Amino acid sequence: MTLPAQSMIDTVHSYVAAFERGDAGAVAALYAEDAVVRDPMDAPPIKGRDAIRAFYERSMATGAKLALSGPVRTTASVAAFAFSVHLTLPTGEGRIDVIDTFEFNPDGLIQQMTAYWGPNNMHGFEEQA
Amino acid sequence: MTLPAQSMIDTVHSYVAAFERGDAGAVAALYAEDAVVRDPMDAPPIKGRDAIRAFYERSMATGAKLALSGPVRTTASVAAFAFSVHLTLPTGEGRIDVIDTFEFNPDGLIQQMTAYWGPNNMHGFEEQA
Repeated sequence: MTLPAQSMIDTVHSYVAAFERGDAGAVAALYAEDAVVRDPMDAPPIKGRDAIRAFYERSMATGAKLALSGPVRTTASVAAFAFSVHLTLPTGEGRIDVIDTFEFNPDGLIQQMTAYWGPNNMHGFEEQA
Repeated sequence: MTLPAQSMIDTVHSYVAAFERGDAGAVAALYAEDAVVRDPMDAPPIKGRDAIRAFYERSMATGAKLALSGPVRTTASVAAFAFSVHLTLPTGEGRIDVIDTFEFNPDGLIQQMTAYWGPNNMHGFEEQA
């Protein structure tokens, strides 16, 4: 299956924009009904659009903001992109460097999202005395 | 399975360094004997360390040079990293923006490499009149 690269790139930009304005419903609408999110990859998978919407609502509640780092990479039906998340945890503000992949279904919806990041990609979040 | 993040990061840096000095054998030695390379993801997979070594020899023959873009992301046993490849094709010089994932085996060798890039990530390569 091959999707137009531009439609996958547009979806990534729509995702970042919807996240920016705190619209979890618009983010969830980019996903297939039975999509799976692994964020990070080794965490328990989040299954289905409703659970995914709730996941983004929790993320947005931290004040998280995304900033793309460089161009979106695309293959036949997968987009990969590097970005940073700026957010506030109970221990303080910080940044997480992440790479996401979006695997699309034939309708152009995200079927699987995988987020690559771990503790060594977290910077800041120190206790503010 | 969880590997130390630093060992995965070191492997990525060893990979870039071995590529830089044109040492396909050293690159292949970072892979498991039965590893699989998908570069790009939708191309026919390259299977086994010997075929992988030959693949890198062909890449290096183009004069390709890698430059990392930002920090390596790691999860339990996968590293993901963004970079650019500068190389010369018959039609001219150019750059390809790529994101790779390395999935490691318990011995810390790369079991599967997947490269995310497509035609829209190629810049330059125009005919030099």
